[in-house]
Amino acid sequence: MSDLDAQFAFLNEADRLKSVLRATTLCDGSRRENSGEHSWHLALYALVLEGQAGPGVDINRVIKMLLLHDLVEIDVGDVPIHSANGQAHASAETQAAEQRAANRIFGLLPEGQATTFRALWDEFEAAETPDALFAKSLDRVQPVMANLQSGGGTWVTYDVTYDQLEARVGVKIAKGAPGVWEWVKGKARVWFG
Amino acid sequence: MSDLDAQFAFLNEADRLKSVLRATTLCDGSRRENSGEHSWHLALYALVLEGQAGPGVDINRVIKMLLLHDLVEIDVGDVPIHSANGQAHASAETQAAEQRAANRIFGLLPEGQATTFRALWDEFEAAETPDALFAKSLDRVQPVMANLQSGGGTWVTYDVTYDQLEARVGVKIAKGAPGVWEWVKGKARVWFG
Ligand SMILES: [Ca+2]
Repeated sequence: MSDLDAQFAFLNEADRLKSVLRATTLCDGSRRENSGEHSWHLALYALVLEGQAGPGVDINRVIKMLLLHDLVEIDVGDVPIHSANGQAHASAETQAAEQRAANRIFGLLPEGQATTFRALWDEFEAAETPDALFAKSLDRVQPVMANLQSGGGTWVTYDVTYDQLEARVGVKIAKGAPGVWEWVKGKARVWFG
Repeated sequence: MSDLDAQFAFLNEADRLKSVLRATTLCDGSRRENSGEHSWHLALYALVLEGQAGPGVDINRVIKMLLLHDLVEIDVGDVPIHSANGQAHASAETQAAEQRAANRIFGLLPEGQATTFRALWDEFEAAETPDALFAKSLDRVQPVMANLQSGGGTWVTYDVTYDQLEARVGVKIAKGAPGVWEWVKGKARVWFG
């Protein structure tokens, strides 16, 4: 098997992320967002909001992380942040399933690339480096903007309060992109009234 | 208006690219692809196929170009490459409409960013620099792979021959990524029989 055989096997498999549906809708509320287009939107968020990143952030690494960050959902699906009273994503079961998915999906690539991409995904998941913290912040901001545009979205679905938004989402946005949370908080407060 | 006001106006507007439908379907043939998820897939192509780029290609610039390259379709829609007997995309009318769209959409951003992003998009459209040529090649390869996976796709819709594929698509892929076209050509030849 040549490198290109392996790389196209991976790229064809990645196509399936376009069929993984998230709880969040498009900004116009017309349908649920899929994780492929969500990943594009996040990479665009990084490109546009680079100036909001803290010192030491390499925006090119952040963009790469965001392009890869949801691929495990091909096997596991998306776990909505406000589902299970805000506890679902942290479950050990979900995390083990995501590890198995990462092994399978990144394992389709040639060995060197599989290792590099997997390390980027592990770094994103660990949410400790400046790059990962900024990437995670953007992943939390984008659904807030979709909810604001679409008239409430998943806040209505899951009956979320402003305090829950601040605890589940705001704290994490503020950690990687404090200026962005300051701005978004103003908009969210108006919506929650 | 603050920079963040302008940046979020742009990011919210960009969301509409998820509702622009292309002629090509997903690899499983289940539905038409939209230009948002297509842009994600292309950025992933760049990340994975970096080793196929010619000398002097900066993969980070290529990825940025690909994240932005289809935004004008929010106003203009996608022009399928094999439509109008392969002539539609080159029309002066389409190009003028895309210029107006670029003015409007990139014009939502703060001035410095509007200029930078617009220059990247202009460079992509001009298809002259190594970065743009590689980005354009990927934009041509990805629908070929979708057609191969889905049983013919737009080749069936538009009654395309192998020679037309080579003339409209292959030549451009080979210009920016000759090794990729060599590999893909082998697969396409089998399909066209
Ligand atoms: Ca997710």
